[in-house]
Amino acid sequence: MSRERLRAVRDRVRSFPDFPVPGVLFRDISPLLKDPVAFKALIDLLEEHLRASFPKVDVIAGLDSRGFLIGPPLAQRLGVGFVLIRKKGKLPGPTESISYALEYGKAELEIQSDAVEAGQKVVVVDDLLATGGTMRAACELLARLKADILECLVVIELKGLRGAAKLEAIPFHSLLQYD
Amino acid sequence: MSRERLRAVRDRVRSFPDFPVPGVLFRDISPLLKDPVAFKALIDLLEEHLRASFPKVDVIAGLDSRGFLIGPPLAQRLGVGFVLIRKKGKLPGPTESISYALEYGKAELEIQSDAVEAGQKVVVVDDLLATGGTMRAACELLARLKADILECLVVIELKGLRGAAKLEAIPFHSLLQYD
Repeated sequence: MSRERLRAVRDRVRSFPDFPVPGVLFRDISPLLKDPVAFKALIDLLEEHLRASFPKVDVIAGLDSRGFLIGPPLAQRLGVGFVLIRKKGKLPGPTESISYALEYGKAELEIQSDAVEAGQKVVVVDDLLATGGTMRAACELLARLKADILECLVVIELKGLRGAAKLEAIPFHSLLQYD
Repeated sequence: MSRERLRAVRDRVRSFPDFPVPGVLFRDISPLLKDPVAFKALIDLLEEHLRASFPKVDVIAGLDSRGFLIGPPLAQRLGVGFVLIRKKGKLPGPTESISYALEYGKAELEIQSDAVEAGQKVVVVDDLLATGGTMRAACELLARLKADILECLVVIELKGLRGAAKLEAIPFHSLLQYD
């Protein structure tokens, strides 16, 4: 049952108040990764969602660094490649980079220029969507490479921060929602 | 054939001179992750190595952040949990942390105090072993939690830097070796 597997996943997310800064409730997926049955259920659910939603996926792109935990097993299940979207300065060779605003200060993301080919159908994966700034920046990088972004897919959506709205026309899906 | 799969993996590692700093030849596994057949061959080879070497593995531990690309699919294949060893300040709750020397300056690694139980059999995974400083620090964190470290396992070993010697008595295995 899909509902039981979803519960198994949700039961393995724990919350820490005031991390990394006061006032933030941190959603920790460590117990989910440590439980092989719940982790398998997570990948099963993401795979089934993608197979039901899209006739063809060419590439899974994952965000540095918790998207790296989920993207590769999902890509392997689908039999497609995985590409990295990293913090600035980590990727060798020609890259595209983008600077974007954080709540305090700014950050920079990067992708290798040959990571995807024009027209490839890409799903962008991360563990969590908060304000959506990082995910939006990742999509802008992929758009520069002329990727066809099918969807942004996350395990956890913090709905109160309205990150999905920031993605505008890009389809978005989350497995678990928190206020 | 194991040799053919190893060649498929090796053929998907590319090299960039002078990255991230002059004089360093960077080994880039991006093409390996992007090729689903080669990536599957990589996980197959690592799984077969562990099954042949150890009657029982309890946990795969992965190093932030390229160890996160390899550890989770490998843990899922073995049906065991995955735990995170992260750069300082990323993990909520009680943690163990360790400071260690880099070529220039120092770095700090962290693990959640409940990540592994005393006596659990752990394999520590990363993409690459260079000087071995990070891997050794990770092993010290696991030793503090009284884990039984079966092996440090990496895709790529830069033999000229003699990192394996720094691990002393801890068993070590690499899939690909470069001088």
